[in-house]
Amino acid sequence: MLLIVPPGGRENDGVPPPPAVSAVRGAVRRLLGSAEAAPFRGAPLVVACSGGADSLALAAAASHAARHAGVALRAVVVDHGLQVGSADVAARAAQQLTGLGAVAEVVTVQVDGPGGPEAAARRARYRVLREKRPPGSLVLLGHTLDDQAETVLLGLGRGSGARSISGMRPVDPPWARPFLGVRRETTEAACRELGLEPWRDPHNADARFTRVRLRTEVLPLMEDVLQGGVHEALARTAQQLREDADALDALAAAERRRVAAGDGLDALALKEIPAALRRRVVRAWLLDRGVPEVTDAHLRAADALVSDWRGQGGPRLPGDFVLSRAHGTLQVGGAGRKPPNG
Amino acid sequence: MLLIVPPGGRENDGVPPPPAVSAVRGAVRRLLGSAEAAPFRGAPLVVACSGGADSLALAAAASHAARHAGVALRAVVVDHGLQVGSADVAARAAQQLTGLGAVAEVVTVQVDGPGGPEAAARRARYRVLREKRPPGSLVLLGHTLDDQAETVLLGLGRGSGARSISGMRPVDPPWARPFLGVRRETTEAACRELGLEPWRDPHNADARFTRVRLRTEVLPLMEDVLQGGVHEALARTAQQLREDADALDALAAAERRRVAAGDGLDALALKEIPAALRRRVVRAWLLDRGVPEVTDAHLRAADALVSDWRGQGGPRLPGDFVLSRAHGTLQVGGAGRKPPNG
Repeated sequence: MLLIVPPGGRENDGVPPPPAVSAVRGAVRRLLGSAEAAPFRGAPLVVACSGGADSLALAAAASHAARHAGVALRAVVVDHGLQVGSADVAARAAQQLTGLGAVAEVVTVQVDGPGGPEAAARRARYRVLREKRPPGSLVLLGHTLDDQAETVLLGLGRGSGARSISGMRPVDPPWARPFLGVRRETTEAACRELGLEPWRDPHNADARFTRVRLRTEVLPLMEDVLQGGVHEALARTAQQLREDADALDALAAAERRRVAAGDGLDALALKEIPAALRRRVVRAWLLDRGVPEVTDAHLRAADALVSDWRGQGGPRLPGDFVLSRAHGTLQVGGAGRKPPNG
Repeated sequence: MLLIVPPGGRENDGVPPPPAVSAVRGAVRRLLGSAEAAPFRGAPLVVACSGGADSLALAAAASHAARHAGVALRAVVVDHGLQVGSADVAARAAQQLTGLGAVAEVVTVQVDGPGGPEAAARRARYRVLREKRPPGSLVLLGHTLDDQAETVLLGLGRGSGARSISGMRPVDPPWARPFLGVRRETTEAACRELGLEPWRDPHNADARFTRVRLRTEVLPLMEDVLQGGVHEALARTAQQLREDADALDALAAAERRRVAAGDGLDALALKEIPAALRRRVVRAWLLDRGVPEVTDAHLRAADALVSDWRGQGGPRLPGDFVLSRAHGTLQVGGAGRKPPNG
């Protein structure tokens, strides 16, 4: 790993950087200066780069930060081989990254496995980034405020509560996302200001992808109807709901120990705790007991066993499980077995 | 107040009701049977009716429930006088309500005051409903799942956290909303099945209203892009976030007593509590101290005084207040005064 050498004469000439460059550098500096990033200080930085505007601007800002911190910058370009010419795109990205003073590496991956090519590409990409990451390093990802807003809307469509609309975390070691407060137009402007030439992924305009339609149709319409500020409002909401979910998850973990009754949960003790904690306790317990998926409807049915108990049976759950109430406790067992007496 | 007499021969003939009628009746029955509605049992029911499909279907379902419970049904039609012919609309609604066995009354109000005609009409309407409500009665309101979804999207556009997207409560005494789980198309179908003739408010198609554009443009597009279920997902999200917010508000109230330090808040004690509780504690404290409005930016600035204290000054707040940290406590005072020493 090489120490970054400032490209001759481009910095330190006393001229303040243009506004978008200043914005992206400030975002990286704030993230790296945060308490959450402190354990990674002094280690090399890794930046994941697709060649697009977001990750090129990120690499440029990270290069500046790495130089000031006296640490190395390693850039990883993953070539998924999904589009014609992807090797050229990767090579062009690596060339620009080298120009920014990073040690750039192109890694070609085989994309396959369940869940369609997009999901498989994401899995392969994160696997490579984990492998290439020097111990103790943060891996910087180029997700912007626009990506965060799209993620919140995608989660809203699922309707599975605070966690599904709490978006991406700025720091989720080893991943770090300095640009969650930066609009995409700012990363594009920063590339222009720096003379970088980002790649425009044709997938980003392909209306077969839900995320593309959220970006190009739903969000612009919402901005118009709600008179602006929608991307920022969604990102703010995500952050607040993430804090809420963190607090509730921690409280629920403590309550779960309190209401545990053997393999089951004490129904009377469960009834006394707030609904928001109760559903989290029951959800975590069911997942731990091997139930593969727990929906809102399952949790409402469990609630009825706790709060509106009239001797009724409980819901069947995925994975051939049945929830029931017996001897004052919630139990979960295989559907094939004889249910215990109520 | 009259006891409701079943209109001759329309019920009790052994034929099950058509599906939409069954759905709206079931919704009213479930709400009236809930634990939250228990304190109101045995009292007359009040239904607020605009003459539109939602509130006419509600009146019909409430009439059925009132008859079964042996209680009176009073229907209140508020004529806001905002549209030409509003008196005729109100009279026509009252006539249909009387046909449903309700004691119907039209109340004409003067709409004025701050915040535009829509807000003034809402204030006037709720004032009349409070006045006309017999003691101990619930007032049923016709808000549907569609209204709830629109309310969540409106709140999302504000981006002020869980409370702003937690929608309307099913029971918020004296108000009750049995249809928050019922789609608008079901109330329209119930009216058709019952031979009721709802009024179609031209405001409901007027694209100058944000809510109308959410209903007619944003939500249909989201349904298309996210492949259905968006209204239901938004309503589910609202319910879950409402439970989360209730639990967090209760926990924050307890924490607030613990971190109180005279007129201020103990900064070290605040630092130890989860961010989600901290922001609620600080927000409630600022509002109690007379600060007229507290935004996310104010709370983030307060957080910096607590978690990232370097002797800095605090933010100026609306109402000419200033937040500061002095002697280990957060303080809020008039901006004109000399700030206390740090």
